[in-house]
Amino acid sequence: MKNRVLSIDERKRVAHHELGHALVALSFPRGDGVHKISIIPRGIAALGYTMQAPTEDRFLMTESELKDKVATLLGGRAAEELIYDEVSTGAHDDLSKATDIARSMVKTFGMSARVGQVSFEKDRRSLMLQPPGEPPFRGEYSDQTARAIDDEVRRIIDEQRDRATEILARLHEVLLRAAQVLLAKETISGQELRDLLAAYRPSEAAAEPPTTSDIHAM
Amino acid sequence: MKNRVLSIDERKRVAHHELGHALVALSFPRGDGVHKISIIPRGIAALGYTMQAPTEDRFLMTESELKDKVATLLGGRAAEELIYDEVSTGAHDDLSKATDIARSMVKTFGMSARVGQVSFEKDRRSLMLQPPGEPPFRGEYSDQTARAIDDEVRRIIDEQRDRATEILARLHEVLLRAAQVLLAKETISGQELRDLLAAYRPSEAAAEPPTTSDIHAM
Amino acid sequence: MKNRVLSIDERKRVAHHELGHALVALSFPRGDGVHKISIIPRGIAALGYTMQAPTEDRFLMTESELKDKVATLLGGRAAEELIYDEVSTGAHDDLSKATDIARSMVKTFGMSARVGQVSFEKDRRSLMLQPPGEPPFRGEYSDQTARAIDDEVRRIIDEQRDRATEILARLHEVLLRAAQVLLAKETISGQELRDLLAAYRPSEAAAEPPTTSDIHAM
Amino acid sequence: MKNRVLSIDERKRVAHHELGHALVALSFPRGDGVHKISIIPRGIAALGYTMQAPTEDRFLMTESELKDKVATLLGGRAAEELIYDEVSTGAHDDLSKATDIARSMVKTFGMSARVGQVSFEKDRRSLMLQPPGEPPFRGEYSDQTARAIDDEVRRIIDEQRDRATEILARLHEVLLRAAQVLLAKETISGQELRDLLAAYRPSEAAAEPPTTSDIHAM
Amino acid sequence: MKNRVLSIDERKRVAHHELGHALVALSFPRGDGVHKISIIPRGIAALGYTMQAPTEDRFLMTESELKDKVATLLGGRAAEELIYDEVSTGAHDDLSKATDIARSMVKTFGMSARVGQVSFEKDRRSLMLQPPGEPPFRGEYSDQTARAIDDEVRRIIDEQRDRATEILARLHEVLLRAAQVLLAKETISGQELRDLLAAYRPSEAAAEPPTTSDIHAM
Amino acid sequence: MKNRVLSIDERKRVAHHELGHALVALSFPRGDGVHKISIIPRGIAALGYTMQAPTEDRFLMTESELKDKVATLLGGRAAEELIYDEVSTGAHDDLSKATDIARSMVKTFGMSARVGQVSFEKDRRSLMLQPPGEPPFRGEYSDQTARAIDDEVRRIIDEQRDRATEILARLHEVLLRAAQVLLAKETISGQELRDLLAAYRPSEAAAEPPTTSDIHAM
Repeated sequence: MKNRVLSIDERKRVAHHELGHALVALSFPRGDGVHKISIIPRGIAALGYTMQAPTEDRFLMTESELKDKVATLLGGRAAEELIYDEVSTGAHDDLSKATDIARSMVKTFGMSARVGQVSFEKDRRSLMLQPPGEPPFRGEYSDQTARAIDDEVRRIIDEQRDRATEILARLHEVLLRAAQVLLAKETISGQELRDLLAAYRPSEAAAEPPTTSDIHAM
Repeated sequence: MKNRVLSIDERKRVAHHELGHALVALSFPRGDGVHKISIIPRGIAALGYTMQAPTEDRFLMTESELKDKVATLLGGRAAEELIYDEVSTGAHDDLSKATDIARSMVKTFGMSARVGQVSFEKDRRSLMLQPPGEPPFRGEYSDQTARAIDDEVRRIIDEQRDRATEILARLHEVLLRAAQVLLAKETISGQELRDLLAAYRPSEAAAEPPTTSDIHAM
Repeated sequence: MKNRVLSIDERKRVAHHELGHALVALSFPRGDGVHKISIIPRGIAALGYTMQAPTEDRFLMTESELKDKVATLLGGRAAEELIYDEVSTGAHDDLSKATDIARSMVKTFGMSARVGQVSFEKDRRSLMLQPPGEPPFRGEYSDQTARAIDDEVRRIIDEQRDRATEILARLHEVLLRAAQVLLAKETISGQELRDLLAAYRPSEAAAEPPTTSDIHAM
Repeated sequence: MKNRVLSIDERKRVAHHELGHALVALSFPRGDGVHKISIIPRGIAALGYTMQAPTEDRFLMTESELKDKVATLLGGRAAEELIYDEVSTGAHDDLSKATDIARSMVKTFGMSARVGQVSFEKDRRSLMLQPPGEPPFRGEYSDQTARAIDDEVRRIIDEQRDRATEILARLHEVLLRAAQVLLAKETISGQELRDLLAAYRPSEAAAEPPTTSDIHAM
Repeated sequence: MKNRVLSIDERKRVAHHELGHALVALSFPRGDGVHKISIIPRGIAALGYTMQAPTEDRFLMTESELKDKVATLLGGRAAEELIYDEVSTGAHDDLSKATDIARSMVKTFGMSARVGQVSFEKDRRSLMLQPPGEPPFRGEYSDQTARAIDDEVRRIIDEQRDRATEILARLHEVLLRAAQVLLAKETISGQELRDLLAAYRPSEAAAEPPTTSDIHAM
Repeated sequence: MKNRVLSIDERKRVAHHELGHALVALSFPRGDGVHKISIIPRGIAALGYTMQAPTEDRFLMTESELKDKVATLLGGRAAEELIYDEVSTGAHDDLSKATDIARSMVKTFGMSARVGQVSFEKDRRSLMLQPPGEPPFRGEYSDQTARAIDDEVRRIIDEQRDRATEILARLHEVLLRAAQVLLAKETISGQELRDLLAAYRPSEAAAEPPTTSDIHAM
């Protein structure tokens, strides 16, 4: 088996992609602090990663925090579009996670006014107890409801994609400059990125990150 | 593993959420008496809880009692919206329970005039006896019926959400004051809450609670 | 575990519910004779019961006999509505049985002119023999047919509900008086109910009941 | 367990039902010869039976032979409607068999011009070999096609029901007279029925039956 | 068990049916050569058979070759309609095979301009590896696509049925004469049929058949 | 078992088909380099093959690279249509692969503006862990979404088919000449094909192929 090494073009794309996540995250004041951005591949799947303050040990998340998370996830792809005018397959995991969050907002957390506070959550515990061949949960709602859910998930994704795109369009120069640094050093800290950001647009510089960390890999 | 402690903001939100349940429940004369409200986390899932007179050992429940139960479940979320203008993920279990009750009202108890006294209840016993891969129950009704069921579940949920919201809007001051007490003491009794309520709106003070108890956790 | 005893309100509702079944049954001349009505709870599920002449050993039942059975099943709930203006969860088993009969009339016995003499009966024996994952029977008909079946089941249920309601409206006084007797004695015989009925409306008094018995429990 | 004996009313209905099958069958010249009609219950399910020339060992059946078979199956119910003005549950097996034949005509034998010579037959052999959970065959056609199939099955059933009803309306007197004989003797031969038929309407008398026999039970 | 022997009528129908396949096949120049036609039953299912040059070891088949195959399969039924004005159950296997080919043309081989070069082929290997209860493949396409597929399968079948019918209408006399010979001799060779054909319409006589053989049974 | 050898006609068709893949691939500058084209059958399924620079070890693929891949897959069939005016069954594996790529572009990689950046990817890992009979993933979206996905997959396939057809129409002479060479030599190198191409249309000659290889078999 040959040695798997990213091409120059792939490395550049990964750098812009990861910085897309990081710069969108940094533009939110509420603690989506960025610790580290790296383009050193990790494990079998990650070509690069952005380490953020974790949300997994949060007890509660508000609707706007979930939206910020979706925007951050879509930031990698938005950066690719901004720089290369076309996207790659590298964003598929981001899309999958963003869709999961948007779908939960609509189906589990009642955060869509159109769908309402009805829960379409599947109780996985009871599924374990029921006999094989048990009716699919799908049967619980009509195609009209399925359509409303699809439309709302799409709306949330579209709104946060636009938000990520606008943020990065504003930070275009920082994105380009930070990518040069990241390609040279392979890893930069959240502080370094905040310093770069402050140099270009002081008002965008975010607060100190929390002390624990969460990893956002491409 | 680090010590999981709620942040100040989370504790405040939990207090308002639990008092939302409690104040809605107290506004119903029929025995939805409240024994205790607490924001001391319990077990792995509950961030706070409201202990109410139980309904599990009731032999019969009327349509209006089921509606009160739905309104009480949605009261936590209504309080969050009232105070914070946006909701959190903390209400998902309430939404799931409220949906289950509303769905049973429509599909099992014939409490929707639009859907009628037709039962769409799944006989779980016979399911146990049938071979795997047996046709899903969904096949028993058309998409037109599925749509009527969805619409009626939604209507019940919407009506009770509005009712919970109106109750709490009326009790805004009590909600704020009671939350201060709850945050300070961590636990208050139903009597203390009734006393607070009487101080503000004597006519709202509810009857003594039953002697057994039921727990409503966030 | 505490001693499960029905409240006064629940006992009253059960009495009216059971007498709803019994009085509707008595109004049919054809042998839906009533042997006994009781509000002594039986087993784990029944809060009261009405013992009727059995139909399980009938070889054939006509369309009008099946309709009488549906009306009798819905009589309990009709009585609750008449007396309390709102229904309870206590009728769910009645609704489930009434729906099963109505659905069989439409899908198995060809008793709906709109759906026709096509059988949509599932041959359970062949299902046992087929491999798991076998196509659901649902596939055998279109959504248009599913809709026609739903509408016809609904029509049968609605017609028999109206019929039960009319019968009980006519017998309102007997219903109230008989409930007083039943609450006092806990059990009354079919003959006692027929005597009460004769006292109020002699022409409604039904024929002697058959000698075997069938139980209709709430 | 009590001795299961049919009531007088049930016996009468069974007699008319079986003669409905027999008289419709006799009106077809092509060998649907009737050997024996009986109202002595047989086994656990049959309340009466009509023994006909078998078709199971036929190698080929034509479209008109299949239609005659459907009409004969629906003859029992047509007789009940003619005599009693309402049907019973006794015809459900006839309906199920008639539906199976009509469905095969449409889905397997290409005998519906509207559905065409497309086969929607499920290959049961290959189903045995495929893994559990294999996609349902239903997926092979659209709801538009399912609707066309439903409509055509319905059309075939309706046409043959009308045909059976017309035949029996013409033979009303024979039906009544033959039932008297059958109720008295419990069993009559096909020849006796043909003789009765000849006495009333000589031209309707059918040819000699084949020598092997097939049983049509109620 | 009695000796299963075809009736005279059945033998005649089988002869015309098999010659329907053979004469349609002979009218295609491209190697659908006919070796032998027989009305001696074979095995448990075949009442007669037409032995043709095999296509199973072909590496590639063109769209027009597949259409010829469909027309040949429908030739048996077309002959029955031509001679008897009504069809029998004998063609069901032909219909099933013709439908399979037409469906593959549309779903697997991209031979429908309306459906396009999208493949709706189910990868059976991966199905073997997935857990039971895996989502049905049906989910991969909408009802709109299912409708387009149904319509195109129907169109292909209709076009080839018309083609088979036209061919046989032209060869009506040969069909009648060849059936007399086949009924007398029970088996005729492809050469004998070609000779008959040449006697009536010399220009229709087909080329020599290939040396290997394929069997087309009724 | 007889010796399976392709006929002359089949060999010609295979040659044109493989050269269709190769010439479309060569017309893309970005590394879809062609190493070898052969019409020597390989293994049980491949009648010929085109060996290309592999993409399996690519870390990222852009949208336009995926489109080129679809066009290359459809090039074999486009060549058949160009030369023979009708297609064969030989392209079914190409169609299946092209459909998979197009479907992934729409459902996984968010590359359809109409469907949006919502992911409809099925998480296969979690499927392994869930109990048999688990709800089908299909339930996750409405028929409206299924229709949008179908339309977009179709659009991508159609666009790339047109592109492949245009490329080959331009290279018609090279295709004919290269097929003569391939039929004579059975195998030609990518360089030989590039030389032929350069002789006819110098500007079309592609860059050197990468050093690793990928096989595209018919």
